Amino acid sequence: MSANTRNLGLPIHELETPALCIDLPAYRRNVARMVAFIHKHGLAWRPHMKGQKAVELAREAVNAGAIGVTCATVYEAETMAHGGVRNILIANQPAGERKLARLAGLQAVTPVLTATDSREHAAQLAAAANEAGAAIPVLIEVDVGMGRCGIAPGEPAVRLAEYIDSTTGLTFAGIMGWEGHVLAFEGEEKKKKIEESLALLTATAQAIRDAGFEVGIVSASGSGTFRLSSAVEGITEVQAGGGVFSDLSYEKWGLDHEFALTVLSRVISRPSATRIIVDAGFKSMSVQHGMPKPIGLGPVKKIVLSAEHGNIELEEPDTAHRVGNTVAFIPGYTDSTLCLHDEICVLTDGTLHAVWAIPGRTGRR
Amino acid sequence: MSANTRNLGLPIHELETPALCIDLPAYRRNVARMVAFIHKHGLAWRPHMKGQKAVELAREAVNAGAIGVTCATVYEAETMAHGGVRNILIANQPAGERKLARLAGLQAVTPVLTATDSREHAAQLAAAANEAGAAIPVLIEVDVGMGRCGIAPGEPAVRLAEYIDSTTGLTFAGIMGWEGHVLAFEGEEKKKKIEESLALLTATAQAIRDAGFEVGIVSASGSGTFRLSSAVEGITEVQAGGGVFSDLSYEKWGLDHEFALTVLSRVISRPSATRIIVDAGFKSMSVQHGMPKPIGLGPVKKIVLSAEHGNIELEEPDTAHRVGNTVAFIPGYTDSTLCLHDEICVLTDGTLHAVWAIPGRTGRR
Repeated sequence: MSANTRNLGLPIHELETPALCIDLPAYRRNVARMVAFIHKHGLAWRPHMKGQKAVELAREAVNAGAIGVTCATVYEAETMAHGGVRNILIANQPAGERKLARLAGLQAVTPVLTATDSREHAAQLAAAANEAGAAIPVLIEVDVGMGRCGIAPGEPAVRLAEYIDSTTGLTFAGIMGWEGHVLAFEGEEKKKKIEESLALLTATAQAIRDAGFEVGIVSASGSGTFRLSSAVEGITEVQAGGGVFSDLSYEKWGLDHEFALTVLSRVISRPSATRIIVDAGFKSMSVQHGMPKPIGLGPVKKIVLSAEHGNIELEEPDTAHRVGNTVAFIPGYTDSTLCLHDEICVLTDGTLHAVWAIPGRTGRR
Repeated sequence: MSANTRNLGLPIHELETPALCIDLPAYRRNVARMVAFIHKHGLAWRPHMKGQKAVELAREAVNAGAIGVTCATVYEAETMAHGGVRNILIANQPAGERKLARLAGLQAVTPVLTATDSREHAAQLAAAANEAGAAIPVLIEVDVGMGRCGIAPGEPAVRLAEYIDSTTGLTFAGIMGWEGHVLAFEGEEKKKKIEESLALLTATAQAIRDAGFEVGIVSASGSGTFRLSSAVEGITEVQAGGGVFSDLSYEKWGLDHEFALTVLSRVISRPSATRIIVDAGFKSMSVQHGMPKPIGLGPVKKIVLSAEHGNIELEEPDTAHRVGNTVAFIPGYTDSTLCLHDEICVLTDGTLHAVWAIPGRTGRR
């Protein structure tokens, strides 16, 4: 049990720090906007949980209209499946005999769609499935320009679909792609690049259909792209997840959602009138994709994060924040921040309403 | 229970990945070198556990000659105290009523030295101690140039010592400083800057003694400085901890220890002859202070880490690493990498010997 599970009903400034906090009404408004937007485009929403992890958040999304969830790891999928969530997709290529045995075993709880991008990997999935007497439904991941995982679009993907279809232990269910390489573009250029990327995906879906296979799922999109990619003809579902929280990175990538996730810290030292040292450093707030931003302070000159210290230098003197007072931060990137924590403090109107465990932590995949 | 606790006795390449692995003999050789060096200078060793966390590692250090341990948080100190470790120092200023109540309560298990750097903070420590009917032994943290926490050297520190000595609930035990701002310097310049910094600390100790107080402890030094700072007259103990593992940052900062901690990953995709995608991304390996370095690959052109993907671009084609094979990485910085994991796989001669929990995780402080 963590400290804050004892603190239900307390106002936010009395919580033990550092604490990862969710503003539940703001989160729900973000979710409602995402669902409405995606449904308006006739698409299904299968939000990525890699940056959310808590099974309560999966249930919230499903209650709001999601068809299921997307995961990055077998451990995340296990957590979701055992938590009663259904329609799970692992948008990644799990590897290793023991990991694949877990994945194959999980199919007995609920079918878990899994991505693959090579014969070599698909054969390993099939071996695990056959060993367990299971069938693993698979999506082919297509590289739409990201240059990470994914088979080349077109013919190579068609041949992989043929291989999957002919391989005992695997069921071909569709394809996916992730246009993450266009995140940083803006305006018309971003729209054009998304359309070009996803045209590779939808053309590949068509080529596989032309070869005689059903392509039930064409999955794509993250929170920094779905406002544009949802309009692309031929996509069937959207993986965008992080937009339920938003953060400074998503804002930079064009999303105007509310900041629903914050890190609460506490002042531990005031070495001078223009310096505030808080108890949240880089082990509480990621610096990946940019620094977190304190709320309610004057203009900030510089922030340096040590392991367990946040060192804030202000442009002007501050006498309001004393040792023991709290300072909340908007994360630079929620995905790399949430995974640093064991729990989420759920707040409604500034009061601790619940504490949700983050079971799909790193270190367990 | 994590996956790898089931895998005792297996060779490293069969472990579930990503896995944080310690080469136990290499770690022990590093520890032996640190102890010998510090003892040769007549100093005590109280290694910092913020980047080690596992209580087994604290016991290893104590068995090898450490007098106790240094911690960054109350939670780390609780873990150590309840794990039977004694002579604990929290080299930080814990704040908040509930946190300080825990700290005060912990004194009944074992005295836990705690840093303070202001009257305001010391008064809050005292209030918590008095509420619990306890006494908290404190060190004054002096800012020796780092510009983070710490009271100014000399007179301000003397006045704080007087305040502590006169305050019920607190016991004045000594002073500490951290010369972390000199890490990146080299050679004679580094030596000179360390001497200048620590002269501020030792002069402050003398000034406090001259005011009539006993200064039992003068604590300083990290793993990137202790080879030089151990020679400074007037220091009584060394906090250096990370050197037991070493990593690319410590190497850059002049330490020649063995790399005892690695992250084991597994190849999940081979999109081309010069690209290897592994299952360890920035949620398994920190990019703080520099990228991790894969072991046993040819020359690397570029590495990009996503959440759960490591995207390695090689200078030359590689056919040796297939999907399912393992690739180990030397961390860029072990302190920010270990805290991403729930457990350490302990290896001897490449075989899994034990799995140690990392209980002092972030999110619980």
